[in-house]
Amino acid sequence: MAKILTLTLNPALDLTVELARLEPGQVNRSDAMHAHAAGKGVNVAQVLADLGHTLTVSGFLGEDNAQVFETLFAQRGFVDAFIRVPGETRSNIKLAEQDGRITDLNGPGPMVHEAAQQALLARLEQIAPGHDAVVVAGSLPRGVSPQWLQALITRLKQLGLNVALDTSGEALRVALAAGPWLIKPNTEELADALGCDVVTELAQAQAAQRLHAQGVEHVVISHGADGVNWFSVGSALHASPPKVTVASTVGAGDSLLAGMLHGLLGAHAPEQTLRTATAIAAMAVTQIGFGIHDTALLASLEQGVRVRPLTEQ
Amino acid sequence: MAKILTLTLNPALDLTVELARLEPGQVNRSDAMHAHAAGKGVNVAQVLADLGHTLTVSGFLGEDNAQVFETLFAQRGFVDAFIRVPGETRSNIKLAEQDGRITDLNGPGPMVHEAAQQALLARLEQIAPGHDAVVVAGSLPRGVSPQWLQALITRLKQLGLNVALDTSGEALRVALAAGPWLIKPNTEELADALGCDVVTELAQAQAAQRLHAQGVEHVVISHGADGVNWFSVGSALHASPPKVTVASTVGAGDSLLAGMLHGLLGAHAPEQTLRTATAIAAMAVTQIGFGIHDTALLASLEQGVRVRPLTEQ
Repeated sequence: MAKILTLTLNPALDLTVELARLEPGQVNRSDAMHAHAAGKGVNVAQVLADLGHTLTVSGFLGEDNAQVFETLFAQRGFVDAFIRVPGETRSNIKLAEQDGRITDLNGPGPMVHEAAQQALLARLEQIAPGHDAVVVAGSLPRGVSPQWLQALITRLKQLGLNVALDTSGEALRVALAAGPWLIKPNTEELADALGCDVVTELAQAQAAQRLHAQGVEHVVISHGADGVNWFSVGSALHASPPKVTVASTVGAGDSLLAGMLHGLLGAHAPEQTLRTATAIAAMAVTQIGFGIHDTALLASLEQGVRVRPLTEQ
Repeated sequence: MAKILTLTLNPALDLTVELARLEPGQVNRSDAMHAHAAGKGVNVAQVLADLGHTLTVSGFLGEDNAQVFETLFAQRGFVDAFIRVPGETRSNIKLAEQDGRITDLNGPGPMVHEAAQQALLARLEQIAPGHDAVVVAGSLPRGVSPQWLQALITRLKQLGLNVALDTSGEALRVALAAGPWLIKPNTEELADALGCDVVTELAQAQAAQRLHAQGVEHVVISHGADGVNWFSVGSALHASPPKVTVASTVGAGDSLLAGMLHGLLGAHAPEQTLRTATAIAAMAVTQIGFGIHDTALLASLEQGVRVRPLTEQ
């Protein structure tokens, strides 16, 4: 099993509020409220831990409400290498009404100043070597530039690490120049980052070729229920997930990324790597949360994944 | 200065979410989110600390999100005697839109089982003696009965303590039988607890007389901007607050209670006690929060309070 470091630069405290009906301007009573530690890197770490890997988690954490994160890290046995910053980690509140309507209230995160950015780089210099891969996932907090992210990835590569990057927008566009080992955008995110259309397989293959030339070995493009295209140097595969009943898509992309790392770091055959990763993502979709709590179900979902080379339409 | 214990049996984590406009069913971005430790006993403790008293705080606290409370207690130098219970302290979310509309989302608190109730009683046996007064303030959490509250007050009295009670509904009605030293209901809360009308001063005086006979020495009835009536054995005073611009009434009642304790425990003259308490409450109303951050302003507000005996209309 591998030793993996995940970086969540802008984690979130997710607060789900269940209520019969939201009445604006009134006092509403909630039947249930649940707070949990979230953020793409934290999610990926949890799925990787379910798969048996050893995790270090890092990034920036607001010191005023770190407890829920610290409790999770302790429960999961993660090494906590987060830099604490003044203020509160952002809260994302989800108001879930009985009729299924969801209202999101997404808060601003703490401002991450240069001292904290320096502190994270210094900590990574110390702790990153010795890990088999680094995952950098999620958005950038206030105060952190795409250029800083690019420099971070460059430095991690210099330290000899495989860097998997899952971000979007300007951050993805700028960071691509550093040549991360693996990226996992969806079609829109990739089009947005490259500034060109990537709807067709041909366009995706051409984009992947350009990315390979920049040092991006693995281009994993997710299309939700339509499946995944994985372009690596000399190989291109498509996987279709089995039909499942969607409970929530939260964590599906993070599950796919975790599954890809699992196969790649374990040197599984490409077809098997993509099959398992797609099944793990499909399993996330069947849950309100995500994670691998039922290995028999995972095995059955794997059976339902169809993998084919992208050149054979 | 006095040594005071406040009990908050059902504290709350207040989360204020500022946003331009709440769009149900959409992803809303919040400009600012602030979490702070709240609950009547915690609020009263803060105002008493501002007045120079030494505080111990106790009650039940959900262990999963205790950090914001622990940080406040450490900052204010409170002795933390809260019993930790499994789960999360309830969150009260306040959505504040730019046009002034407020939507409240009040969560359920943790279930407080008998073992925790026993643990609190055991802790109070140890720590309550040596305090000059105990404040029991706020609602009851799930699992705690009004009868338990009544027994708690009886026990605190047996330990030789003056008990100030600020609660409402069934809890107030049942706990009154234990004869707390001081109560501070508003007109509606008192009417509700006694099952009779207490709108007129005469009705209030009669109600107070019955309560005095049950051992309630001080009946403080608040009427918001109309002021406060204070009935004690052999004395009845009314105070009218100065006219102030209302920023928020949060913490005004808790400020009044803290002010009354300050005067009573300091053996100030009754007229001065009520004057200062009314001014502290008025000052809370001028703030989004509460507390005594400007003693010159407090002195000026005191000048504006009008106190008269209730028999001289």
